[in-house]
Amino acid sequence: MIALVGFVEREGNAIFNAAAICVNGRLLTTYRKICLPNYGVFDEKRYFHPGHQPLILKLADLRMGVSICEDIWVDGVIEYEAQRGADFILNISASPYHWKKGDEREFLLTSRAQNNRVYLAYVNTVGGQDELLFDGRSFIFDPTGQPLLRGEKFAEQFIIHDLAIDPTRLRNADRSQSVITVGGDKTEGAATKYFALREVPVALPAPIFPQQASAPNLAPHLDDEDEVFRALVLGTRDYVGKNRFAKVVLGLSGGIDSALTAVIAVAALGPENVIGVLMPSRFNISASTEDALALAQRLGMQTHTIPINAPVEAMENLLAPAFAGRERDITEENLQARIRGMILMALSNKFGWLVLTTSNKSEAAVGYATLYGDMAGGFGVLKDVPKTFVYRLANWLNQVHFKEKPPIPQRIIDRPPSAELRADQTDQDSLPPYDLLDQIIEAFVEENHGVEEMIAAGLPEATVRQVVKMIDRAEYKRRQAAPGIKITPRNFGKDRRMPITNRFQP
Amino acid sequence: MIALVGFVEREGNAIFNAAAICVNGRLLTTYRKICLPNYGVFDEKRYFHPGHQPLILKLADLRMGVSICEDIWVDGVIEYEAQRGADFILNISASPYHWKKGDEREFLLTSRAQNNRVYLAYVNTVGGQDELLFDGRSFIFDPTGQPLLRGEKFAEQFIIHDLAIDPTRLRNADRSQSVITVGGDKTEGAATKYFALREVPVALPAPIFPQQASAPNLAPHLDDEDEVFRALVLGTRDYVGKNRFAKVVLGLSGGIDSALTAVIAVAALGPENVIGVLMPSRFNISASTEDALALAQRLGMQTHTIPINAPVEAMENLLAPAFAGRERDITEENLQARIRGMILMALSNKFGWLVLTTSNKSEAAVGYATLYGDMAGGFGVLKDVPKTFVYRLANWLNQVHFKEKPPIPQRIIDRPPSAELRADQTDQDSLPPYDLLDQIIEAFVEENHGVEEMIAAGLPEATVRQVVKMIDRAEYKRRQAAPGIKITPRNFGKDRRMPITNRFQP
Repeated sequence: MIALVGFVEREGNAIFNAAAICVNGRLLTTYRKICLPNYGVFDEKRYFHPGHQPLILKLADLRMGVSICEDIWVDGVIEYEAQRGADFILNISASPYHWKKGDEREFLLTSRAQNNRVYLAYVNTVGGQDELLFDGRSFIFDPTGQPLLRGEKFAEQFIIHDLAIDPTRLRNADRSQSVITVGGDKTEGAATKYFALREVPVALPAPIFPQQASAPNLAPHLDDEDEVFRALVLGTRDYVGKNRFAKVVLGLSGGIDSALTAVIAVAALGPENVIGVLMPSRFNISASTEDALALAQRLGMQTHTIPINAPVEAMENLLAPAFAGRERDITEENLQARIRGMILMALSNKFGWLVLTTSNKSEAAVGYATLYGDMAGGFGVLKDVPKTFVYRLANWLNQVHFKEKPPIPQRIIDRPPSAELRADQTDQDSLPPYDLLDQIIEAFVEENHGVEEMIAAGLPEATVRQVVKMIDRAEYKRRQAAPGIKITPRNFGKDRRMPITNRFQP
Repeated sequence: MIALVGFVEREGNAIFNAAAICVNGRLLTTYRKICLPNYGVFDEKRYFHPGHQPLILKLADLRMGVSICEDIWVDGVIEYEAQRGADFILNISASPYHWKKGDEREFLLTSRAQNNRVYLAYVNTVGGQDELLFDGRSFIFDPTGQPLLRGEKFAEQFIIHDLAIDPTRLRNADRSQSVITVGGDKTEGAATKYFALREVPVALPAPIFPQQASAPNLAPHLDDEDEVFRALVLGTRDYVGKNRFAKVVLGLSGGIDSALTAVIAVAALGPENVIGVLMPSRFNISASTEDALALAQRLGMQTHTIPINAPVEAMENLLAPAFAGRERDITEENLQARIRGMILMALSNKFGWLVLTTSNKSEAAVGYATLYGDMAGGFGVLKDVPKTFVYRLANWLNQVHFKEKPPIPQRIIDRPPSAELRADQTDQDSLPPYDLLDQIIEAFVEENHGVEEMIAAGLPEATVRQVVKMIDRAEYKRRQAAPGIKITPRNFGKDRRMPITNRFQP
């Protein structure tokens, strides 16, 4: 047996992102990743030295080119190995998820196999790590770019797949078409980085290739809502479990964000491990409480009801002398949110439950959330989910995924969203309509468009300028936010590193 | 006049960290930074493309080599320019401060001037930007490595210095000794990155070099405490001012951290712009309140006293049903801290004051602070100052810097440190002695030593293992902490990027 296992290789003071090539229980050789990503969520150049040597393993007639993750995204390494005789490219990856990346990745791998006329096995890790989620979905492609194997998304699998290969025939393929392009690296030319191929023979009997290959084994593509739901469930389960928590607690407001967070938490951990806390104030209408209780009942989860009027009053009385002569304002709204945050943190401290925050990407973008209030907690399940997609997910859960037993009371979906921190408040008192807001956030944050570009593309000027200013000003809040699962191409977190002190006027 | 001005140069989709060389009000040419730092607090490779061309400006007989910041820290660019005739190296920098870096920087620049037999002018920016502080202290060195000019630290200055240069004599210096070393870049060889010198004539009359140069103008070196105090004052003033706050508010506990923070804030902003809030509970001894009031009086700052017994009781009553049958524990301690945080945030919301947090690096390291409690606030003045240095600073302020009118009541310095969240509590109930703790933090966090190395160096094994575990476990708290001024060679922040989900056992 030959096994490729990722590890950190040390040489003197340098470390390398490496693959150990293990043959029959012994280390044969190592391969060092050549292309180190240093953009988006990646920081590899901070820590790792780049490798310089492509590697071909020679197993009797078969030649296998080795690569790690980014090596296959950048023109160069794969082409180099294929032109020097590799029939089969192996790639081990920890490629993080964001929506639609699946299509992009499959298209890229298809092209690599086809253009280089090689078999290609791509093996991606599965599971959550702080804000990143690795989505699995490993592949095998044949030299025409056809997928022979497409693994499940968001699930570990052990798969054996028989190939019928004729290495001699493959060897004769014309690979001169595949040109090594310089500059595939995002900031520096890649071509100067590797110098000499290593060919390492593997002392094993020649592999037996059956006449008949395994039938293609192709897991289906997922709808957008299905994919994001599974991502959120796995990301939540892994953050909670890997950090050794058993149970989670969250505030149930009767609004759609906390309802969706509860559904995801219950799907991830089971209803017995999710505790909902209702913390009504005098500004919460009775429908909110009814809906929150109905949701909890449908999900089979335990609730506590802890009305906050008494501590709100105690705090307001306490502050009355200092606030003498001042009008009520956002201060009193934040007090309510912070008392709720304090209650959840007290339950967390007393019982060892992890607090899930429930706010979404649209709110994080414009700072429509209270620091140490609804932002208090250890993990933000919906942190990178735009509000419009929160609605899409809620509808899909009720109408498709759990249509036999819709978990979210319809009124939660239908009522206009409100923080309920003062009488008759709705989100749209302070924010543009969410469909417009989310378009601007996508254009500005995820696609890096400037103000002038957005206006030229037809977005309303006043709203664009208002939202961009809100996004820039909210950086100080985001810096103190809990981590949450990356869902979009650019999340708030490691992916977007902005200063707080900043007078740039876009 | 020739002026060098840093700016971002764009070419297609690539951007460069660049210097504009402006002559008599017009742009002559640009220089693109060759060496891009991507370690520590730096992320330049994420954003910038590297330049490839050293630049020499020819002004009649004089040849001036241009460089930007990191270009002078790495072997290569300066040597290349000197070997090709530069008499004078110009370097514009934004080099962030940490303690003792000043000596390191002066030694480096001395060596560069001396080894390359060139005049060297090093111009560093001044001011705070989030967690970074740029400390100024620009230099001119002569070709023997003697400093002709050493500017002030932490202060902007406009300095004119006359040099008596004989370019012909300089030109004949033997510079073949200065070898270009490959691999100065922290992860990749630097030598492959630049290819061809550019020489650009400057159409100005030949400069007049006086027979007599200006006398050396050398600002003095600072004592450690003096340097750190000035750094904290400037960093605080700039964060507050650049983010358009006029006043700050902080909790005054009667302990040394809040006392030192208050002294720094008053030095930075004036006593009229610093509001202290005393928030005694039943666990605060009367000495704490007396000392806090005495401190405020000495500093001439306004105070509010808001006892927290009533809201603590309201919260405990509220939670009593949920906590039935459970012992008092850290939950009740955190409640007190969070009510204090909520009070400070309410004052911030109502009056537009920035909340300063008062906790120090030792506490941040081991998580000896309450999330949303004493960690609540916008800026952490002492965030990167170890507790033992907090004492050194307090003593120096009282005994040296303000010895005529010591600002900190001696009892604040003398009493054993305590969070006063339960009866008779002291920090040393939960933590090793601070001198030992700080040694371990320095070795582990700043110097990257492993557990075995620390034990081998004589640190007590049980304490080392306990502290390292505490540091790793507190990552989730630090992720939600306010920014604060980098003082040590490695701060918690951009400088140390660790995962929360982490089962590595060091």
